[in-house]
Amino acid sequence: MDIDPASLDRRAAYQLMISCIIPRPIAWVTTLSKEGVVNLAPFSYFNGVSSFPPIVSIAVGSRRDGRKDTWINVEETGEFVVNIVTKETADAMVLTSKELPHNVSEMELAKLESEPSLKVKPPRVKASPVHLECVRYKIVEVESSALILGRVVHYHVRDSVATNGLVDPAKVSVVGRLGGDAYALVDGMFDLKRP
Amino acid sequence: MDIDPASLDRRAAYQLMISCIIPRPIAWVTTLSKEGVVNLAPFSYFNGVSSFPPIVSIAVGSRRDGRKDTWINVEETGEFVVNIVTKETADAMVLTSKELPHNVSEMELAKLESEPSLKVKPPRVKASPVHLECVRYKIVEVESSALILGRVVHYHVRDSVATNGLVDPAKVSVVGRLGGDAYALVDGMFDLKRP
Repeated sequence: MDIDPASLDRRAAYQLMISCIIPRPIAWVTTLSKEGVVNLAPFSYFNGVSSFPPIVSIAVGSRRDGRKDTWINVEETGEFVVNIVTKETADAMVLTSKELPHNVSEMELAKLESEPSLKVKPPRVKASPVHLECVRYKIVEVESSALILGRVVHYHVRDSVATNGLVDPAKVSVVGRLGGDAYALVDGMFDLKRP
Repeated sequence: MDIDPASLDRRAAYQLMISCIIPRPIAWVTTLSKEGVVNLAPFSYFNGVSSFPPIVSIAVGSRRDGRKDTWINVEETGEFVVNIVTKETADAMVLTSKELPHNVSEMELAKLESEPSLKVKPPRVKASPVHLECVRYKIVEVESSALILGRVVHYHVRDSVATNGLVDPAKVSVVGRLGGDAYALVDGMFDLKRP
Protein backbone atom coordinates (compact mmCIF):
# COMPACT_ATOMS: atom_id res chain seq x y z
CA MET A 1 0.00 0.00 0.00
CA ASP A 2 1.57 3.31 -1.14
CA ILE A 3 0.01 6.48 0.18
CA ASP A 4 0.74 10.04 -0.83
CA PRO A 5 -0.46 12.05 2.18
CA ALA A 6 -1.28 14.97 -0.12
CA SER A 7 -4.20 12.82 -1.35
CA LEU A 8 -5.75 12.58 2.14
CA ASP A 9 -8.21 14.85 3.89
CA ARG A 10 -7.62 16.09 7.45
CA ARG A 11 -9.33 13.17 9.14
CA ALA A 12 -7.71 10.46 7.01
CA ALA A 13 -4.27 12.05 7.46
CA TYR A 14 -4.72 12.00 11.25
CA GLN A 15 -5.96 8.42 11.31
CA LEU A 16 -3.06 7.19 9.16
CA MET A 17 -0.39 8.95 11.22
CA ILE A 18 -1.71 7.74 14.58
CA SER A 19 -1.90 4.17 13.27
CA CYS A 20 1.75 4.25 12.11
CA ILE A 21 3.42 5.88 15.13
CA ILE A 22 2.71 3.43 17.96
CA PRO A 23 2.77 2.99 20.91
CA ARG A 24 2.68 6.64 22.02
CA PRO A 25 3.16 7.79 25.63
CA ILE A 26 0.34 9.93 27.00
CA ALA A 27 0.85 13.28 28.71
CA TRP A 28 -2.20 14.10 30.77
CA VAL A 29 -1.53 17.79 31.24
CA THR A 30 -2.71 20.12 34.00
CA THR A 31 -2.44 23.86 33.44
CA LEU A 32 -3.95 26.97 35.02
CA SER A 33 -5.71 29.73 33.13
CA LYS A 34 -4.89 33.36 33.95
CA GLU A 35 -8.13 33.34 35.97
CA GLY A 36 -7.02 30.28 37.95
CA VAL A 37 -9.23 27.60 36.33
CA VAL A 38 -7.53 24.18 36.22
CA ASN A 39 -7.42 22.63 32.75
CA LEU A 40 -6.69 18.93 32.21
CA ALA A 41 -6.30 17.28 28.80
CA PRO A 42 -4.50 14.26 27.30
CA PHE A 43 -1.94 14.48 24.47
CA SER A 44 -0.15 11.60 22.82
CA TYR A 45 2.20 13.60 20.57
CA PHE A 46 4.42 13.67 23.65
CA ASN A 47 8.01 12.62 24.28
CA GLY A 48 11.40 13.53 25.67
CA VAL A 49 13.64 15.90 23.72
CA SER A 50 16.71 16.16 25.93
CA SER A 51 17.54 14.28 29.11
CA PHE A 52 20.22 16.56 30.56
CA PRO A 53 18.80 19.10 31.15
CA PRO A 54 15.43 17.28 31.09
CA ILE A 55 13.18 18.76 28.39
CA VAL A 56 9.94 17.24 27.07
CA SER A 57 7.74 18.16 24.10
CA ILE A 58 3.97 18.10 23.69
CA ALA A 59 2.31 18.96 20.38
CA VAL A 60 -1.01 20.70 20.89
CA GLY A 61 -3.34 21.30 17.98
CA SER A 62 -6.00 23.86 17.39
CA ARG A 63 -9.70 23.42 17.98
CA ARG A 64 -12.44 24.70 15.72
CA ASP A 65 -12.75 27.98 17.61
CA GLY A 66 -9.04 28.64 18.08
CA ARG A 67 -6.12 27.44 20.18
CA LYS A 68 -6.66 24.68 22.72
CA ASP A 69 -6.76 25.70 26.37
CA THR A 70 -3.47 23.93 27.15
CA TRP A 71 -1.66 26.04 24.55
CA ILE A 72 -3.27 29.29 25.76
CA ASN A 73 -2.49 28.50 29.39
CA VAL A 74 1.17 27.51 28.85
CA GLU A 75 1.65 30.65 26.79
CA GLU A 76 0.03 32.85 29.44
CA THR A 77 1.22 31.26 32.67
CA GLY A 78 4.33 29.32 31.59
CA GLU A 79 3.79 26.18 33.67
CA PHE A 80 2.30 22.70 33.33
CA VAL A 81 2.32 19.27 34.92
CA VAL A 82 2.49 15.98 33.02
CA ASN A 83 0.49 13.30 34.84
CA ILE A 84 1.07 9.68 33.75
CA VAL A 85 -2.01 7.64 32.75
CA THR A 86 -2.58 4.16 34.11
CA LYS A 87 -5.26 1.55 33.51
CA GLU A 88 -7.07 2.84 36.62
CA THR A 89 -7.33 6.40 35.28
CA ALA A 90 -7.87 5.61 31.57
CA ASP A 91 -11.64 6.21 31.65
CA ALA A 92 -11.21 9.55 33.42
CA MET A 93 -8.46 10.52 30.95
CA VAL A 94 -10.73 9.99 27.96
CA LEU A 95 -13.48 12.04 29.64
CA THR A 96 -11.07 14.97 29.87
CA SER A 97 -10.44 14.93 26.11
CA LYS A 98 -13.80 16.64 25.70
CA GLU A 99 -13.67 20.24 24.52
CA LEU A 100 -15.14 22.35 27.32
CA PRO A 101 -15.49 26.13 27.58
CA HIS A 102 -12.28 27.85 28.80
CA ASN A 103 -13.77 28.54 32.25
CA VAL A 104 -14.87 24.96 33.00
CA SER A 105 -12.46 22.53 34.68
CA GLU A 106 -12.10 18.99 33.34
CA MET A 107 -10.89 17.96 36.83
CA GLU A 108 -14.40 18.54 38.15
CA LEU A 109 -16.09 16.93 35.14
CA ALA A 110 -14.07 13.75 35.66
CA LYS A 111 -14.46 13.94 39.46
CA LEU A 112 -10.70 13.81 39.98
CA GLU A 113 -8.91 14.86 43.12
CA SER A 114 -5.93 17.14 42.82
CA GLU A 115 -2.92 17.76 45.03
CA PRO A 116 -0.58 20.75 45.02
CA SER A 117 2.64 20.69 43.04
CA LEU A 118 5.94 21.59 44.66
CA LYS A 119 7.52 24.03 42.21
CA VAL A 120 4.73 25.09 39.86
CA LYS A 121 1.19 26.38 40.35
CA PRO A 122 -0.88 23.87 38.31
CA PRO A 123 -1.92 21.00 40.57
CA ARG A 124 -1.22 17.31 40.06
CA VAL A 125 -3.79 14.57 39.44
CA LYS A 126 -3.71 12.68 42.72
CA ALA A 127 -4.59 9.33 41.11
CA SER A 128 -1.51 9.46 38.84
CA PRO A 129 1.55 7.71 40.27
CA VAL A 130 4.08 9.80 38.31
CA HIS A 131 4.17 13.57 37.77
CA LEU A 132 6.58 15.80 35.88
CA GLU A 133 6.39 19.44 36.95
CA CYS A 134 7.43 21.60 34.00
CA VAL A 135 8.13 25.21 33.09
CA ARG A 136 7.88 26.54 29.55
CA TYR A 137 11.19 26.34 27.69
CA LYS A 138 9.97 27.39 24.24
CA ILE A 139 6.86 27.15 22.07
CA VAL A 140 7.58 26.30 18.44
CA GLU A 141 4.65 26.89 16.09
CA VAL A 142 4.38 24.18 13.46
CA GLU A 143 1.60 24.84 10.94
CA SER A 144 -1.58 25.08 13.04
CA SER A 145 -0.06 23.25 16.06
CA ALA A 146 2.15 24.32 18.94
CA LEU A 147 5.10 22.19 19.91
CA ILE A 148 5.37 23.04 23.59
CA LEU A 149 8.82 22.39 25.03
CA GLY A 150 9.02 22.27 28.81
CA ARG A 151 11.91 21.86 31.23
CA VAL A 152 11.17 19.33 33.99
CA VAL A 153 11.88 21.04 37.31
CA HIS A 154 10.55 18.30 39.57
CA TYR A 155 9.66 14.60 39.38
CA HIS A 156 7.28 12.76 41.71
CA VAL A 157 7.28 8.96 41.59
CA ARG A 158 4.99 7.10 43.98
CA ASP A 159 7.10 4.73 46.08
CA SER A 160 4.91 1.74 45.24
CA VAL A 161 5.75 1.98 41.51
CA ALA A 162 9.51 2.57 41.88
CA THR A 163 12.50 0.24 41.90
CA ASN A 164 15.97 1.69 42.53
CA GLY A 165 14.73 5.23 42.01
CA LEU A 166 13.15 4.58 38.60
CA VAL A 167 9.59 3.91 37.43
CA ASP A 168 9.17 0.13 37.25
CA PRO A 169 6.70 -0.87 34.50
CA ALA A 170 6.17 -4.20 36.20
CA LYS A 171 4.65 -2.36 39.19
CA VAL A 172 2.24 -0.09 37.33
CA SER A 173 -0.01 -0.57 34.31
CA VAL A 174 0.93 2.44 32.17
CA VAL A 175 -1.33 3.06 29.17
CA GLY A 176 -0.04 3.95 25.70
CA ARG A 177 -2.01 5.31 22.76
CA LEU A 178 -2.47 3.54 19.41
CA GLY A 179 -4.56 4.41 16.35
CA GLY A 180 -8.35 4.79 16.11
CA ASP A 181 -9.89 4.61 19.58
CA ALA A 182 -7.29 2.06 20.74
CA TYR A 183 -4.97 2.02 23.71
CA ALA A 184 -2.45 -0.56 24.91
CA LEU A 185 -0.93 -1.67 28.16
CA VAL A 186 2.83 -1.88 28.51
CA ASP A 187 3.22 -5.60 28.28
CA GLY A 188 5.30 -8.38 26.71
CA MET A 189 8.45 -6.77 28.10
CA PHE A 190 11.92 -7.95 27.11
CA ASP A 191 15.46 -6.64 27.49
CA LEU A 192 17.96 -6.00 24.73
CA LYS A 193 21.49 -4.95 25.64
CA ARG A 194 23.07 -2.24 23.53
CA PRO A 195 26.26 -3.38 21.79
CA MET B 1 9.81 9.84 45.96
CA ASP B 2 10.57 13.48 45.12
CA ILE B 3 13.38 14.16 42.71
CA ASP B 4 14.93 17.47 41.77
CA PRO B 5 16.53 16.73 38.40
CA ALA B 6 19.19 19.36 39.12
CA SER B 7 20.58 16.88 41.66
CA LEU B 8 21.15 14.19 39.01
CA ASP B 9 24.17 13.54 36.80
CA ARG B 10 23.79 13.03 33.05
CA ARG B 11 23.33 9.27 33.23
CA ALA B 12 20.83 9.33 36.11
CA ALA B 13 18.82 12.12 34.44
CA TYR B 14 18.58 10.03 31.28
CA GLN B 15 17.59 6.85 33.11
CA LEU B 16 14.87 8.65 35.10
CA MET B 17 13.35 10.35 32.07
CA ILE B 18 13.21 7.20 29.94
CA SER B 19 11.61 5.28 32.81
CA CYS B 20 8.84 7.92 33.19
CA ILE B 21 7.91 8.51 29.54
CA ILE B 22 6.68 5.10 28.38
CA PRO B 23 5.92 3.41 26.03
CA ARG B 24 7.85 5.31 23.34
CA PRO B 25 7.52 4.64 19.61
CA ILE B 26 10.80 3.89 17.83
CA ALA B 27 11.96 5.63 14.67
CA TRP B 28 14.58 3.50 12.98
CA VAL B 29 16.02 6.16 10.72
CA THR B 30 17.82 5.79 7.41
CA THR B 31 19.77 8.75 6.06
CA LEU B 32 22.47 9.28 3.44
CA SER B 33 25.72 11.10 4.03
CA LYS B 34 26.97 13.63 1.46
CA GLU B 35 29.26 10.87 0.23
CA GLY B 36 26.34 8.45 -0.18
CA VAL B 37 26.95 6.17 2.83
CA VAL B 38 23.69 4.82 4.31
CA ASN B 39 23.26 5.48 8.02
CA LEU B 40 20.72 3.63 10.13
CA ALA B 41 20.01 4.34 13.82
CA PRO B 42 17.10 4.00 16.27
CA PHE B 43 15.58 6.93 18.21
CA SER B 44 12.77 6.74 20.73
CA TYR B 45 12.33 10.49 21.35
CA PHE B 46 10.07 10.29 18.31
CA ASN B 47 6.44 11.26 17.69
CA GLY B 48 3.98 13.10 15.52
CA VAL B 49 3.74 16.89 15.71
CA SER B 50 1.03 17.71 13.19
CA SER B 51 -1.19 15.35 11.22
CA PHE B 52 -2.36 17.71 8.47
CA PRO B 53 0.11 18.35 6.98
CA PRO B 54 1.89 15.30 8.42
CA ILE B 55 4.98 16.33 10.39
CA VAL B 56 7.01 14.16 12.76
CA SER B 57 9.78 14.98 15.24
CA ILE B 58 12.88 13.04 16.22
CA ALA B 59 15.23 14.28 18.91
CA VAL B 60 18.84 13.38 18.17
CA GLY B 61 21.53 13.89 20.76
CA SER B 62 25.22 14.46 20.47
CA ARG B 63 27.91 11.83 20.73
CA ARG B 64 31.21 12.26 22.49
CA ASP B 65 32.99 13.44 19.36
CA GLY B 66 30.22 15.71 18.07
CA ARG B 67 26.86 15.49 16.38
CA LYS B 68 25.36 12.12 15.58
CA ASP B 69 25.44 11.00 11.94
CA THR B 70 21.65 11.23 11.60
CA TRP B 71 21.75 14.91 12.58
CA ILE B 72 24.66 15.66 10.21
CA ASN B 73 23.00 13.82 7.34
CA VAL B 74 19.56 15.42 7.69
CA GLU B 75 21.24 18.82 7.90
CA GLU B 76 23.38 18.16 4.82
CA THR B 77 21.00 16.18 2.61
CA GLY B 78 17.54 17.09 3.97
CA GLU B 79 15.93 13.66 3.76
CA PHE B 80 15.27 10.64 5.95
CA VAL B 81 13.09 7.55 6.21
CA VAL B 82 11.44 6.31 9.41
CA ASN B 83 11.29 2.51 9.44
CA ILE B 84 9.00 0.90 12.01
CA VAL B 85 10.55 -1.72 14.34
CA THR B 86 8.87 -5.08 14.92
CA LYS B 87 9.72 -8.05 17.08
CA GLU B 88 11.41 -9.66 14.09
CA THR B 89 13.81 -6.74 13.58
CA ALA B 90 14.40 -5.78 17.24
CA ASP B 91 17.80 -7.51 17.47
CA ALA B 92 19.01 -5.84 14.29
CA MET B 93 17.69 -2.48 15.53
CA VAL B 94 19.73 -2.67 18.73
CA LEU B 95 22.85 -3.60 16.74
CA THR B 96 22.46 -0.36 14.77
CA SER B 97 22.51 1.77 17.91
CA LYS B 98 26.30 1.26 17.98
CA GLU B 99 28.33 4.37 17.25
CA LEU B 100 30.29 3.63 14.07
CA PRO B 101 32.63 5.89 12.09
CA HIS B 102 30.77 8.27 9.72
CA ASN B 103 31.83 6.25 6.62
CA VAL B 104 30.63 2.84 7.87
CA SER B 105 27.05 1.71 7.21
CA GLU B 106 24.98 0.14 9.97
CA MET B 107 22.89 -1.54 7.28
CA GLU B 108 25.87 -3.72 6.41
CA LEU B 109 26.83 -4.33 10.03
CA ALA B 110 23.33 -5.63 10.80
CA LYS B 111 23.17 -7.51 7.47
CA LEU B 112 19.93 -5.78 6.51
CA GLU B 113 18.56 -5.59 3.00
CA SER B 114 17.42 -2.24 1.70
CA GLU B 115 14.97 -1.22 -0.98
CA PRO B 116 14.72 2.12 -2.76
CA SER B 117 12.36 4.82 -1.53
CA LEU B 118 9.90 6.47 -3.90
CA LYS B 119 10.34 10.18 -3.18
CA VAL B 120 13.58 10.51 -1.20
CA LYS B 121 17.12 9.19 -1.69
CA PRO B 122 17.74 7.31 1.61
CA PRO B 123 16.65 3.68 1.19
CA ARG B 124 14.10 1.80 3.27
CA VAL B 125 14.79 -1.19 5.52
CA LYS B 126 13.16 -4.01 3.57
CA ALA B 127 12.27 -6.00 6.69
CA SER B 128 10.17 -3.11 8.12
CA PRO B 129 6.47 -3.32 7.25
CA VAL B 130 5.87 0.45 7.54
CA HIS B 131 7.98 3.34 6.19
CA LEU B 132 7.55 7.10 6.38
CA GLU B 133 9.55 8.96 3.73
CA CYS B 134 10.36 12.43 5.09
CA VAL B 135 11.94 15.69 4.04
CA ARG B 136 13.43 18.16 6.49
CA TYR B 137 10.92 20.74 7.68
CA LYS B 138 13.03 22.44 10.34
CA ILE B 139 15.78 21.59 12.83
CA VAL B 140 15.30 23.13 16.28
CA GLU B 141 18.40 23.04 18.46
CA VAL B 142 17.51 22.29 22.09
CA GLU B 143 20.53 22.40 24.38
CA SER B 144 22.95 19.81 22.93
CA SER B 145 20.24 17.97 20.99
CA ALA B 146 18.56 18.55 17.63
CA LEU B 147 14.82 18.26 17.34
CA ILE B 148 14.50 17.23 13.71
CA LEU B 149 11.08 18.01 12.24
CA GLY B 150 10.26 16.23 9.00
CA ARG B 151 7.30 16.40 6.66
CA VAL B 152 6.05 12.96 5.61
CA VAL B 153 5.90 12.91 1.80
CA HIS B 154 5.11 9.23 1.37
CA TYR B 155 3.83 6.31 3.45
CA HIS B 156 4.37 2.63 2.68
CA VAL B 157 2.30 0.09 4.62
CA ARG B 158 2.76 -3.59 3.78
CA ASP B 159 -0.63 -5.03 2.76
CA SER B 160 -0.35 -7.89 5.26
CA VAL B 161 -0.31 -5.48 8.25
CA ALA B 162 -3.13 -3.17 7.05
CA THR B 163 -6.87 -3.11 7.68
CA ASN B 164 -9.00 -0.50 5.89
CA GLY B 165 -5.94 1.47 4.87
CA LEU B 166 -4.47 1.79 8.37
CA VAL B 167 -1.75 -0.09 10.26
CA ASP B 168 -3.46 -2.82 12.29
CA PRO B 169 -1.56 -3.53 15.52
CA ALA B 170 -3.25 -6.94 15.73
CA LYS B 171 -1.46 -7.95 12.51
CA VAL B 172 2.07 -6.85 13.39
CA SER B 173 4.12 -6.94 16.60
CA VAL B 174 5.35 -3.36 16.86
CA VAL B 175 8.02 -2.76 19.50
CA GLY B 176 8.02 0.22 21.89
CA ARG B 177 10.85 1.47 24.09
CA LEU B 178 10.76 1.61 27.90
CA GLY B 179 13.44 2.50 30.47
CA GLY B 180 16.77 0.77 31.08
CA ASP B 181 17.40 -1.87 28.40
CA ALA B 182 13.69 -2.71 28.22
CA TYR B 183 11.28 -2.87 25.32
CA ALA B 184 7.61 -3.83 25.12
CA LEU B 185 5.25 -5.28 22.59
CA VAL B 186 2.00 -3.52 21.79
CA ASP B 187 -0.37 -5.73 23.72
CA GLY B 188 -3.35 -5.70 26.08
CA MET B 189 -5.25 -3.54 23.61
CA PHE B 190 -8.57 -1.94 24.45
CA ASP B 191 -10.82 0.72 22.93
CA LEU B 192 -12.08 3.88 24.64
CA LYS B 193 -14.53 6.09 22.79
CA ARG B 194 -14.01 9.82 23.06
CA PRO B 195 -16.97 11.63 24.60
